[in-house]
Amino acid sequence: MTVLVLTCEQDVTADLVVARLNSAGVPVVRLDPADLPGEVALSGEYVHGVFRGHLSAGGRLVSMGGLRSVWVRRPGVPGARAAEPSGWLAEEASQAFYGMLRGTGARWMNHPDAARRARHKPWQLHLAQRSRLPVPATLITTFPQAARDFAERFPDLVVKPVSGAHPQEPPRVVPTSRVAPDVDFAAVAFGPTLLQRRVDKRADIRLTAVGDRILAARKAVAPDADPADVDVRFAPSDEPWRPADVPPRIAEAVRLYLREAELAYGAFDFAEDVDGIWWFLECNQSGQFGFVEMDTGQPIARSVAEWLAGDGPEAPSHPGTSAHTVP
Amino acid sequence: MTVLVLTCEQDVTADLVVARLNSAGVPVVRLDPADLPGEVALSGEYVHGVFRGHLSAGGRLVSMGGLRSVWVRRPGVPGARAAEPSGWLAEEASQAFYGMLRGTGARWMNHPDAARRARHKPWQLHLAQRSRLPVPATLITTFPQAARDFAERFPDLVVKPVSGAHPQEPPRVVPTSRVAPDVDFAAVAFGPTLLQRRVDKRADIRLTAVGDRILAARKAVAPDADPADVDVRFAPSDEPWRPADVPPRIAEAVRLYLREAELAYGAFDFAEDVDGIWWFLECNQSGQFGFVEMDTGQPIARSVAEWLAGDGPEAPSHPGTSAHTVP
Repeated sequence: MTVLVLTCEQDVTADLVVARLNSAGVPVVRLDPADLPGEVALSGEYVHGVFRGHLSAGGRLVSMGGLRSVWVRRPGVPGARAAEPSGWLAEEASQAFYGMLRGTGARWMNHPDAARRARHKPWQLHLAQRSRLPVPATLITTFPQAARDFAERFPDLVVKPVSGAHPQEPPRVVPTSRVAPDVDFAAVAFGPTLLQRRVDKRADIRLTAVGDRILAARKAVAPDADPADVDVRFAPSDEPWRPADVPPRIAEAVRLYLREAELAYGAFDFAEDVDGIWWFLECNQSGQFGFVEMDTGQPIARSVAEWLAGDGPEAPSHPGTSAHTVP
Repeated sequence: MTVLVLTCEQDVTADLVVARLNSAGVPVVRLDPADLPGEVALSGEYVHGVFRGHLSAGGRLVSMGGLRSVWVRRPGVPGARAAEPSGWLAEEASQAFYGMLRGTGARWMNHPDAARRARHKPWQLHLAQRSRLPVPATLITTFPQAARDFAERFPDLVVKPVSGAHPQEPPRVVPTSRVAPDVDFAAVAFGPTLLQRRVDKRADIRLTAVGDRILAARKAVAPDADPADVDVRFAPSDEPWRPADVPPRIAEAVRLYLREAELAYGAFDFAEDVDGIWWFLECNQSGQFGFVEMDTGQPIARSVAEWLAGDGPEAPSHPGTSAHTVP
């Protein structure tokens, strides 16, 4: 049974995981869907009630029925490296490639449907609440008056994008920033705005979940930090990430969240307050883990490799796949 | 409890359904997400573990917790009619709008995740096989030799797009067409190609499923029809659509398909052969039904209205919605 790794050529994180799979003797095919058609080829037939599919990449042929797992890491857009790329070819190649893979019984990290759904921040907040994770009071609105009322109830606010990265080329990360106390909220009528009570944090927490395995790291806020630096991705800091114990209630809630979200991998960001409470900020289903592993030495790449190589019962099942039993 | 209808302004099919809901006294809010922000406004807050959301459209305010169902008919892209539309605004507005609606307990026709997944034709074919619907022998390939071998086994073939409509503006439907007997398949290396055994059909079948209700219509092939006219959407024909009985095995298979696909609505196309067998061609999760209702008088709009108004157990549940019980 083969592990299929979908990523671009330059991906040192994938290199680490593939090296571990190789040394464990687990067959791996690594390819970039951008090379279909071309370096990557596929074929699948539906005859007499049976599906048989094959992928070819780098001169290797692999049966789709023989796929153990699929790691959707940093794949390019199908058709992107064809001689004459087009929107039509991208659509045809994408539907053929992912449409066929969806029909295999392979376990996914993460399944494209779950990955897409998991990006919705309002849905994340709601699911976090229902999983009993502490969520800072949040408002998403296009009503200026609702924003003003919220700012009266919660005077210390941050603002962040609803959707994550700005879709320019290359994508630009929009930092979370503090809301000035005298701001006029008239402009929220022109675009949904996400306001959130600022957590007076003493540390940032990055919790990485790989299947049932949960690893957390903590980066203390320096005593002289500027309270305006709310976004750990942009705050200047010499503090390293250090391994942190996960409170059992948080571990339980995170597992519930992942199960509901049908995710095999998730990178959770929390803000730890002065009382030691971990406030849920977001769960990134494709969050990087190299920087945490580098600082902490936590075995995240190994955990990913083991999950991909395993065939345990941890994998969420997805509608219309062979893993489902149709009675 | 209110029915939310998402569609553009000009939509006579939606008009029919809304009129039925109105006359049954069921509260309806109809809006086009393209009008957010602007004519449509939203607000949702996540405070103390509880979500409370509201939508406003045409001067009416509706609580998201009070939504009975959402009909995703022909919605525009969120943000599209803003004063300054942009990719960024579309993404922000879309995530806010659908992200919040995803967290409500409303039933969907159809849920955006299920709708998106259901478009994948390779996945459709595989699910149809597993649901025990007869599927004509099909090959999807970028290997010229695989295409040649397939054409030897099945000499009478049609070719159709893997993905459906060509994504130009406006979208162009690419017809299914017959493969000439002497064709050279070298070009399949440049783009995935879907080849399918041509069904020598005596009728086209359109089966419309609304929840558990299944209605089929049949359009006979005229005795003097040209066998090259394989695509009913483009074939000249004076034959009307007439109501048809659904064989019990087909009804059972269709229900299985919809359950696995988590679809509340599906328009199935079959080709009926000379032995009376219905061969599965595709299932369009957003297929039109006005033309069938016009010819046959079958109560499809009424069935849609009843499904939207009902709160029975027919609705598929979707991950991370309030309809799910988190233990």
